Amino acid sequence: MRIAVDALGGDNAPEEVVSGVLRAARRLASGTIVLVGPPERLEPYLGGDDRPPNLDLVASGGVISMSEEPAAALRANPEASVAVAATLVRRGEADALFSAGSTGATVAAALLGIGRLKGCRRPAIATVLPFPRPVLLLDAGATIVCRPQDLLNFAILGSVFAKRYFGLEGEARVGLINVGEEPGKGSDLARESHGLLSSSPAVNFVGNVEGRDIGSGTADVLVTDGFTGNVVLKTAEGTAREILSMVRSAVTEGGPQHKLAGAVLRPRLVAVRDQVDPENYGGSFLLGVRGSVVIGHGNSRARGVENALAGISGAGAGLTGELQDALLAGNAS
Amino acid sequence: MRIAVDALGGDNAPEEVVSGVLRAARRLASGTIVLVGPPERLEPYLGGDDRPPNLDLVASGGVISMSEEPAAALRANPEASVAVAATLVRRGEADALFSAGSTGATVAAALLGIGRLKGCRRPAIATVLPFPRPVLLLDAGATIVCRPQDLLNFAILGSVFAKRYFGLEGEARVGLINVGEEPGKGSDLARESHGLLSSSPAVNFVGNVEGRDIGSGTADVLVTDGFTGNVVLKTAEGTAREILSMVRSAVTEGGPQHKLAGAVLRPRLVAVRDQVDPENYGGSFLLGVRGSVVIGHGNSRARGVENALAGISGAGAGLTGELQDALLAGNAS
Repeated sequence: MRIAVDALGGDNAPEEVVSGVLRAARRLASGTIVLVGPPERLEPYLGGDDRPPNLDLVASGGVISMSEEPAAALRANPEASVAVAATLVRRGEADALFSAGSTGATVAAALLGIGRLKGCRRPAIATVLPFPRPVLLLDAGATIVCRPQDLLNFAILGSVFAKRYFGLEGEARVGLINVGEEPGKGSDLARESHGLLSSSPAVNFVGNVEGRDIGSGTADVLVTDGFTGNVVLKTAEGTAREILSMVRSAVTEGGPQHKLAGAVLRPRLVAVRDQVDPENYGGSFLLGVRGSVVIGHGNSRARGVENALAGISGAGAGLTGELQDALLAGNAS
Repeated sequence: MRIAVDALGGDNAPEEVVSGVLRAARRLASGTIVLVGPPERLEPYLGGDDRPPNLDLVASGGVISMSEEPAAALRANPEASVAVAATLVRRGEADALFSAGSTGATVAAALLGIGRLKGCRRPAIATVLPFPRPVLLLDAGATIVCRPQDLLNFAILGSVFAKRYFGLEGEARVGLINVGEEPGKGSDLARESHGLLSSSPAVNFVGNVEGRDIGSGTADVLVTDGFTGNVVLKTAEGTAREILSMVRSAVTEGGPQHKLAGAVLRPRLVAVRDQVDPENYGGSFLLGVRGSVVIGHGNSRARGVENALAGISGAGAGLTGELQDALLAGNAS
């Protein structure tokens, strides 16, 4: 497998991206990483003669910033690193694309440069929510306005992915994020999607799931529109971070006996923090395009980049073909 | 102030509701609580001769369950306790209504029985999110499908309420929940609401707020539609509960030294749990109707009911009039 990496994507690019790429290249048993960026900006971090043999460089010229309108910026700058990386995938010169840069730019580069799967109107960002039972959430922000058919497609794509990612034996259980458990609850989109998901033989639908139950283990896959999914993801991550910060203050401040007790418990509390740290879950997969496209956290450090690249490799060969088959079969059923 | 309480509302009614009412009646320096329910079902919990003097009873006949379509159920059962309580408010025989029962039934009873403020198309549920800097979120689920004008009204109502509730000196800072900070981000509703909120002199608008920043203290009030708000509220509460449960396991399991350290830190960790426990923040206010209407958590216990009733009393007299004035002034500006 060849993974094209946007070396300029992310708040800590290129240094942390290159550092994560070097680690991943050394860790991967097979496969090659293609680092895409301006050679003169990457050179200082590449480690000279120590460079792993399974690391290639492809030159690009520029970056799409967070504040630009993605599609227009890509047209204005076709040599941007994320666009060049997408072109490598379209030409078959890479199997996967990774970027920790602007999500909008990566989605636009994938749509313009790689293209959609047949039967997929719009793609979805699939991301693992780790609190406390991991569940695959999609769409986490690629398609802000969705139709019921989009949510059915997300359910089909997410089921294939979750089965691989979580190593499920049976079919993935799919839930619909909604404001109540009853089928009649929610927006027009939620009610119509409930009907479509209930009647599709392609999906093992378990019904509505409320926000308070997203981590309860009742579903392997949760589908919703990209607006709601993005807000859910960020609310869950933000709340987890804030609660852990309050716990940290509680066990590190106070009297000497509290500090001593905090030191004893530190390894166990660090384990909790690591269990919910998004950086340990690699990136988010953009499902619905003709290739593996993975979006890292904008603030990814080397470890996050390394884990994301290992995750792409671990998702295995043939994912895109399996997603395409499931989509065609599901939409025909 | 007279507060009408739906004695049959909630998972633990009537026992925990009556118990919370008794506690609140004894705690309130002034004011009366009117308990609405079937006398024969309340009698066992009323404490006989010990009953506080500022507790009245009004008979009703029945309850609206969570699974019923609220408006239809209310029309079929006008003697339901929540409907009778709303009627007391309409007639001026009570100033406020509290129910821990079906949210839909309470909202419907308020709309049918009490009516809306002038200039308010739809009401909003305003609830305090306590992680870690308290912020008032609305709408948490009363109006699933909103227009931009609704969100402007929620901002006006929420600003008045937050100023009182948090004791703010200046105007409340209002944020719009969205998927990015830039004005052009999000759904049609989000983009149009951003424009309306930016241009209204009635609102101190600070811009878009992402899910990860809801507890960061950048806003006192967060507005969104009832679908998104309900999902945000439940996701935040569910995540907080799950993370604290993981922390509890980490500090109570393990070897003897961990258990000892856990015992030392227990009071400090309980303080964190209490700080984020929704039961300590009373109920949620339904804003936009002609009276104080407060919705308790469905699983409220006596302490939650007591705190909610104290909160209603604490919100102070004249709230409804002030909300009406702000709405008329804001919509005219």
